[in-house]
Amino acid sequence: MRAAVAWTGDAVEIIDQTLLPGEERMLRLTTPEQVVDAIRRLAVRGAPAIGICGAFGVVVAAKAGRREAGAAMIRAARPTAVNLAWAVDRVLAAADAEAEALAILDEDREACRLIGEHGRAELPHARRVLTLCNTGWLATGGWGTALGIVYAKAAAGEPVEVLACETRPLLQGARLTAWELQQEGIPVTVLTEGAAAARLAQGGVDAVIVGADRVAANGDTANKIGTYALAIAAHHHGVPFYVAVPRSTLDPETPDGAAIEIEQRDGAEVRAAAGLPDEVAVWNPAFDVTPAALVTAIVCDAGVLRPPFGASIAEALGATARA
Amino acid sequence: MRAAVAWTGDAVEIIDQTLLPGEERMLRLTTPEQVVDAIRRLAVRGAPAIGICGAFGVVVAAKAGRREAGAAMIRAARPTAVNLAWAVDRVLAAADAEAEALAILDEDREACRLIGEHGRAELPHARRVLTLCNTGWLATGGWGTALGIVYAKAAAGEPVEVLACETRPLLQGARLTAWELQQEGIPVTVLTEGAAAARLAQGGVDAVIVGADRVAANGDTANKIGTYALAIAAHHHGVPFYVAVPRSTLDPETPDGAAIEIEQRDGAEVRAAAGLPDEVAVWNPAFDVTPAALVTAIVCDAGVLRPPFGASIAEALGATARA
Repeated sequence: MRAAVAWTGDAVEIIDQTLLPGEERMLRLTTPEQVVDAIRRLAVRGAPAIGICGAFGVVVAAKAGRREAGAAMIRAARPTAVNLAWAVDRVLAAADAEAEALAILDEDREACRLIGEHGRAELPHARRVLTLCNTGWLATGGWGTALGIVYAKAAAGEPVEVLACETRPLLQGARLTAWELQQEGIPVTVLTEGAAAARLAQGGVDAVIVGADRVAANGDTANKIGTYALAIAAHHHGVPFYVAVPRSTLDPETPDGAAIEIEQRDGAEVRAAAGLPDEVAVWNPAFDVTPAALVTAIVCDAGVLRPPFGASIAEALGATARA
Repeated sequence: MRAAVAWTGDAVEIIDQTLLPGEERMLRLTTPEQVVDAIRRLAVRGAPAIGICGAFGVVVAAKAGRREAGAAMIRAARPTAVNLAWAVDRVLAAADAEAEALAILDEDREACRLIGEHGRAELPHARRVLTLCNTGWLATGGWGTALGIVYAKAAAGEPVEVLACETRPLLQGARLTAWELQQEGIPVTVLTEGAAAARLAQGGVDAVIVGADRVAANGDTANKIGTYALAIAAHHHGVPFYVAVPRSTLDPETPDGAAIEIEQRDGAEVRAAAGLPDEVAVWNPAFDVTPAALVTAIVCDAGVLRPPFGASIAEALGATARA
């Protein structure tokens, strides 16, 4: 499996995800401005991956003698994913910026591996998984979060297939998840978000598994717009709904979902598909919040966290602090 | 307001809805094959409108001396909307085909007017309405079904605005509903289907109102894919969920949703947006079924039908038979 973000010693290398699946173009980011631009326009996306990209972005800024200003700019590039601010702050506080960024990458790779193993143990009979957006190697430093569980099952020889919601407006599910899974030989079927509830009603979907951009202290989960609708529909059909994240996505400073800032993006992202003129009003939040009550469990590198999430999340983070 | 389908005396004239909002091109259909093609590729769509188009299609076929064969072909053009088979059969059974088709058009226009008035009376305080797909004059012989209620409110001077789900994969909400409402000066905001549940969670949405392609005898409702997800989300948030249809969409011959044939459409409709290669599997049903239990009421030309729908639908259709 490849890497969404690589460090060459003097540049951050990413694959431009806005061009997939049609074109695989590598980008070399050597200034904080380039890092910010890549994050803002989603050339690199996925909470863990933008954290890693931001971490190396601080290294780039430091090499250019603009450590503080560059880090501040990168930290503010996107507001919802907690991993970005967390990674930037961690590199800023470190004596050796480059070593710290490399450590963040390594830890995320290991976290993905553990998420996969914990998820596989939790869901031994889940053969058909429904997901949204992209949570694989394009979104993380390893093989992914929600897709990490799928990859872990496949690696263990367990039968697994994925129903991938296309994920409007930017189609990360159709463009990225389908592409990733096909490269790994895992069966995937794309469907629209509107079709997901009807697919759940048909039966035969064993679990809904998604990633997250920020999990509040009480378990409320911010993730790609459309996640909340899936959680309601899964609940309605008695299908378990899992959130898969590294501990860096758990945010003890945010008490609940109401306190999570939701990024509003340009309506042009929605208008483009229909050729709508600029004057048509659009509501285009990048994320929504799924209340903890709709989450069956959170699969993280520390293990499978269960309700009440306030306690299980605090315990998982305490384990980090002690580690 | 304009008409989706017009009869010139020797041709069916429609506006090619696949080209909206970018281009307004009129099509003249003078053979059954042209009628079938227009219906199949959704140049004309919306259950009542394809019923009307099919009715005039039989007239066209009859003028060409191919009444039976042409009618059979048109009747089978799309399976889910009951209005098409109903209208074709009605024209076939009539002594004067052209007069019968004109009667179907007139009746649908009047049905839309009544749906609007009944809906307005039912929802005097509904200011912000969420809808899916297109149910206005482009979809019917009159001013529409779900949008007919919106137009009736606007015509009465009541404040009303619409949240229009874009409606993947063919974007009828973004392309057609937004265009229609802007022409009528009614405020409209487009959002993705994935965002609808999050919008309901924000509050301030007074009702979800949709049309339908077929309502079974028990009230189970087939409508555009995505409707079922909206119904679940509306239920979860305590927002009333209305189905607005002319009586021609009520199908006493179909006992429940399980008996409704759901049209599966080409996966290319979904793949196109993401530039996916043909080998990517897609699940692309055109419709889903919302169980009657999630429907607050059915607004039809006979009035507002309430649960238990088995009885209220039978009564509404009995009124038709007696009329």
